[in-house]
Amino acid sequence: MTFKVDFKVRDYECDLQGIVNNSVYFNYLEHARHEFLYAKGVDFAQLAKDKINLVVIRSEMDYKHSLIPGDEFYVAVEPVRISRLKFAFKQIVVRKRDEKVMLNALVTGTSVNEKGRPFLPPEIDNLFKTEI
Amino acid sequence: MTFKVDFKVRDYECDLQGIVNNSVYFNYLEHARHEFLYAKGVDFAQLAKDKINLVVIRSEMDYKHSLIPGDEFYVAVEPVRISRLKFAFKQIVVRKRDEKVMLNALVTGTSVNEKGRPFLPPEIDNLFKTEI
Amino acid sequence: MTFKVDFKVRDYECDLQGIVNNSVYFNYLEHARHEFLYAKGVDFAQLAKDKINLVVIRSEMDYKHSLIPGDEFYVAVEPVRISRLKFAFKQIVVRKRDEKVMLNALVTGTSVNEKGRPFLPPEIDNLFKTEI
Amino acid sequence: MTFKVDFKVRDYECDLQGIVNNSVYFNYLEHARHEFLYAKGVDFAQLAKDKINLVVIRSEMDYKHSLIPGDEFYVAVEPVRISRLKFAFKQIVVRKRDEKVMLNALVTGTSVNEKGRPFLPPEIDNLFKTEI
Repeated sequence: MTFKVDFKVRDYECDLQGIVNNSVYFNYLEHARHEFLYAKGVDFAQLAKDKINLVVIRSEMDYKHSLIPGDEFYVAVEPVRISRLKFAFKQIVVRKRDEKVMLNALVTGTSVNEKGRPFLPPEIDNLFKTEI
Repeated sequence: MTFKVDFKVRDYECDLQGIVNNSVYFNYLEHARHEFLYAKGVDFAQLAKDKINLVVIRSEMDYKHSLIPGDEFYVAVEPVRISRLKFAFKQIVVRKRDEKVMLNALVTGTSVNEKGRPFLPPEIDNLFKTEI
Repeated sequence: MTFKVDFKVRDYECDLQGIVNNSVYFNYLEHARHEFLYAKGVDFAQLAKDKINLVVIRSEMDYKHSLIPGDEFYVAVEPVRISRLKFAFKQIVVRKRDEKVMLNALVTGTSVNEKGRPFLPPEIDNLFKTEI
Repeated sequence: MTFKVDFKVRDYECDLQGIVNNSVYFNYLEHARHEFLYAKGVDFAQLAKDKINLVVIRSEMDYKHSLIPGDEFYVAVEPVRISRLKFAFKQIVVRKRDEKVMLNALVTGTSVNEKGRPFLPPEIDNLFKTEI
């Protein structure tokens, strides 16, 4: 996985156990995916304005270790083509100081138009074609 | 699934696509699990104070349909014993007006003590025993 | 203040101090305002779709006491007209078991159209007129 | 204000109006304050573990303009001593591309011990002394 986004844990992301709340990893992964897409010329926010919605249809996440306040980490992103209308992202969350994998994820998505019908814009289609 | 927690979508939970953000379902599911545990005599926040942390080790979520502003829904919770030290929750998110299943989830957890070692408190152990 | 919305603290809303994070009160207040507006026939989400945005221009919040896991509380809302184009909401967060005021807030807003110009839809205008 | 923390808007921070949700500015401001404190030798998370809680007692925020997806900005922090037991932070949110001030804030806090009594640790006391 060559695409990486750097992060640092913010205290408000931690819950009463003093560790990053499980739901927040979802935020990290989403931001990394959108940065990946943006780097490849796909603007998630603009697509939403154009009534084309990229949507997650399945997520699998394995929590290995917990991030704590102050931790610096990166999220790596690797695109995977699943089928004609489905694409996925392999993602890992890696703590920087020891390169420990904190979380493994596979997030599968598709793209729908204003009517909720499957519609893969060419730039998405190409993006996942070229990466296989 | 007989244990249910009622919710209503709050506008701030929706993102720029105008639908509930994916990460927020995680919040809904967590709250429903904690309410389930509390109803069974297990207080998540008190356990955390006692340095016993219930932690999620894996989540699988299938997003079927999107919740939108104003939607009323419930989250149902069913406990499942996985192994001696692992337990899980089957969870569904159901829109009330038509009983449509919006999301299916399986969330697997374990319990660790202050040293991060597996430790299942008796009340957790019993909870998942009796429900098989 | 006669308009009230009931809430219960969710564990994920608490931070590493074990209390509800300061930013979350903002979420509570916003949800209560939107419920108030909705009860009066003003749909925030629909307005946003129609490119009319209700926006907060100033907030003042006095934090008196902290909500903790499990607390049940309500948020009361009282509309106040500030000027021709500005309106405000007096809001308090009250813990149910002892009617203790946890937070006092004054949130001032206005309404803008697609071009960012001030535009008060009649239903908003009337809402704050009649309440003086 | 010489202390600054860099940020970039993440799509999940935006709400159905397509702009950063009001509550999220609170997160930005908190993170910037904690980074400021950390840079000065005060570790918020460690203090919480030691049962010394820095708490916000009042916030005033003026929303000037809205951040949107992709915006890069910084939050500047300036400490102000209010009284023997109270301290404050002047904070501004500035969009980088044109140095436009998006938000002005004054956040007042104090410090309490395990019993909820006012207690200002020396490192906090000194921090606000030297900055006047």
